[in-house]
Amino acid sequence: MRKLEERILKDGKVFKGNVLKVDSFLNHQLDVGLLSDIGKELKRLYNDCDITKVLTIEASGIGVGCMVAQFFDCPLLFAKKTKTINIKGDVYKSQVESFTHQCVYDIIVSKDFITSDDTVLIVDDFLAKGNALNGLIDIVNQAGAKLAGCGIAIEKGFQGGGDKLREQGIRVESMAIIDKMDDATGEIVFR
Amino acid sequence: MRKLEERILKDGKVFKGNVLKVDSFLNHQLDVGLLSDIGKELKRLYNDCDITKVLTIEASGIGVGCMVAQFFDCPLLFAKKTKTINIKGDVYKSQVESFTHQCVYDIIVSKDFITSDDTVLIVDDFLAKGNALNGLIDIVNQAGAKLAGCGIAIEKGFQGGGDKLREQGIRVESMAIIDKMDDATGEIVFR
Repeated sequence: MRKLEERILKDGKVFKGNVLKVDSFLNHQLDVGLLSDIGKELKRLYNDCDITKVLTIEASGIGVGCMVAQFFDCPLLFAKKTKTINIKGDVYKSQVESFTHQCVYDIIVSKDFITSDDTVLIVDDFLAKGNALNGLIDIVNQAGAKLAGCGIAIEKGFQGGGDKLREQGIRVESMAIIDKMDDATGEIVFR
Repeated sequence: MRKLEERILKDGKVFKGNVLKVDSFLNHQLDVGLLSDIGKELKRLYNDCDITKVLTIEASGIGVGCMVAQFFDCPLLFAKKTKTINIKGDVYKSQVESFTHQCVYDIIVSKDFITSDDTVLIVDDFLAKGNALNGLIDIVNQAGAKLAGCGIAIEKGFQGGGDKLREQGIRVESMAIIDKMDDATGEIVFR
């Protein structure tokens, strides 16, 4: 999506360790107009899929998830991160390794809100190694729901997570895919 | 807002310790249509206030915050919860005592995204004792920004936080105010 690429070039900042800071529009301050455009584009791409639920992960997935869900006229469900081992109630659980925080945490989704009748679109702000997505896909599979695919704002293509998922036959639509970025020069190259 | 009250009566569950579980539409699974109606109503109420920024707190404030912000055509900014003491970059910081998790945590907002030129509407899913709101108001004051008021989905009126804020002259608009709830009978009484 050209508009997102232009915004990344304008306001994104590249830091050491493959970090792209986009907190002025995507994950601290949110440009809801831009997120709405992402929702519109994902609706176009997944229009024939009869999506019944958009699934994301707290916290920074919730914004884009909400704006996407309203185009599909379906609820947004967000997985909660937890360090608690004993969860009250009946939940699906998976494990995610965090690239940003360098730790492993559990993600949980209540069994009440995802069933084998659902067709799910997974949405997130970032895709790097694919750890969060793999956890969410695991939960969709545990529920016996149908996975339509994934809709991502920014994919860091050079970290390989997106292509690994595509090789498994999973549909991944990213609004911007970065193939190269350089913290010394600030250069960002899109696929 | 009648529609929200009806939904609380239909799907809300009262538990011991003044807990109202509304995770089927407000803070795990989100009914984005309902959140959009809340946005529309807050736009009506704060229409004359020239809001330049909607401020909330992660995670469950982000959904309603996004849907509200799009009606004001302004960004959503969400405060991050952190246990980290040394924060990189220049941030406003305040402390919040959590009713749900019974702990104290820091909340932070980057100084880049809130300034004395801003007129801020604070939005959150719940208002109980007002701890989270007080932290957010503290940050608005630190930034020298103007506070238009607060927009809340569900206020637990019997816990007094909302009325304490109103006594201080702060405008608080809640879409549903619960004056009484009983975990034995499941009864919920609105103001």
